[in-house]
Amino acid sequence: MIKLFYAPHTCSLASHIALEEVGARYATVRVDFASNEQRGPEYLAVNPKGRVPALATDGGVLTETPAMLAFIAQSFPQARLAPLDDPFAFAQVQAFNSYLCSTLHVAHAHRMRGHRWADHPMAIAEMQRKVPESVGACYDLIERRMLAGPWVMGDAYTICDPYLFTLAQWLEADGVDPARVPRVIDHRRRMAERRPVRKAIAEELG
Amino acid sequence: MIKLFYAPHTCSLASHIALEEVGARYATVRVDFASNEQRGPEYLAVNPKGRVPALATDGGVLTETPAMLAFIAQSFPQARLAPLDDPFAFAQVQAFNSYLCSTLHVAHAHRMRGHRWADHPMAIAEMQRKVPESVGACYDLIERRMLAGPWVMGDAYTICDPYLFTLAQWLEADGVDPARVPRVIDHRRRMAERRPVRKAIAEELG
Repeated sequence: MIKLFYAPHTCSLASHIALEEVGARYATVRVDFASNEQRGPEYLAVNPKGRVPALATDGGVLTETPAMLAFIAQSFPQARLAPLDDPFAFAQVQAFNSYLCSTLHVAHAHRMRGHRWADHPMAIAEMQRKVPESVGACYDLIERRMLAGPWVMGDAYTICDPYLFTLAQWLEADGVDPARVPRVIDHRRRMAERRPVRKAIAEELG
Repeated sequence: MIKLFYAPHTCSLASHIALEEVGARYATVRVDFASNEQRGPEYLAVNPKGRVPALATDGGVLTETPAMLAFIAQSFPQARLAPLDDPFAFAQVQAFNSYLCSTLHVAHAHRMRGHRWADHPMAIAEMQRKVPESVGACYDLIERRMLAGPWVMGDAYTICDPYLFTLAQWLEADGVDPARVPRVIDHRRRMAERRPVRKAIAEELG
């Protein structure tokens, strides 16, 4: 059975929601960040990167949210979470998710994980100071150019939607005024009403 | 016809090599970073992110290297640049490329593009100081755990190979001792011997 390694309040929620959306049989394993379990030998044997999420499958372990989301969509084609038969449309889905992981999530990470890229406390504080601007610029682009509506790719709900929803949980804490991105906020609100989303959140935070 | 927007010494080389590997008919458009052309209205109409690469296709414009590489592999299946019929193996390819874009390339970018995440010159200098450590940690992981050999995914040459080769161009300038990652260096050397790689580089730098 598929096993999702996750931690609350991280991007692993995106894959958790996708597993619910497709109706997968799966188990979850909570990785305890408070005790730094993600850097312990047991978890490093699962994922040598020492991060969540990771997805243990019959074929081996997968990491990286965009790859895991595409794997879930391809493994449960009847759920239609990605346009699997159209290479260009599929690439658009992949491009959106790639932007979230390499630009939006990275900008966000400078608020809490600045130690990845600098040691001096002043540099880390300077990174934190710029987060509202850098994260805000990402959301401006998503609001104006990338979120087709009602779902990210338009009428079809895809693996882009749980990923955007997950990162948008952190929008206010990143210092972005929600009034500036009404379409992103509306998307977040509609996502929060979906049963699979509520179920994944309840399990992680309940 | 496919049109690749690129700039020399950027990650657009990965897609350029992939287009050569599959034998695509394509044109290239050089974006002049020296005159900040990537932030000008003409290029922003192509790619509102103001970055390279971008791939103009009959269906529209694609961005983000992992998505573009997967699109090239799927559009030219006879070239076998990805295990398209095996969702798990394909996800492994995607996971590797996602790691390159969201972790290795991001760590590298703190050397030249620190202004994305901080304004103060001291903070930018502190980011630059840590690049050998953060980029080095990525290469250690690739060397020990991710590069199967002889190609990234093992015996099959895939879209992971031009992407790793492209980022590995910057390894020494990022302050990583090549003696520390002999398998990455051997991969880079063998890549540099391939005719499609030589052709793409010659066009970009010639």
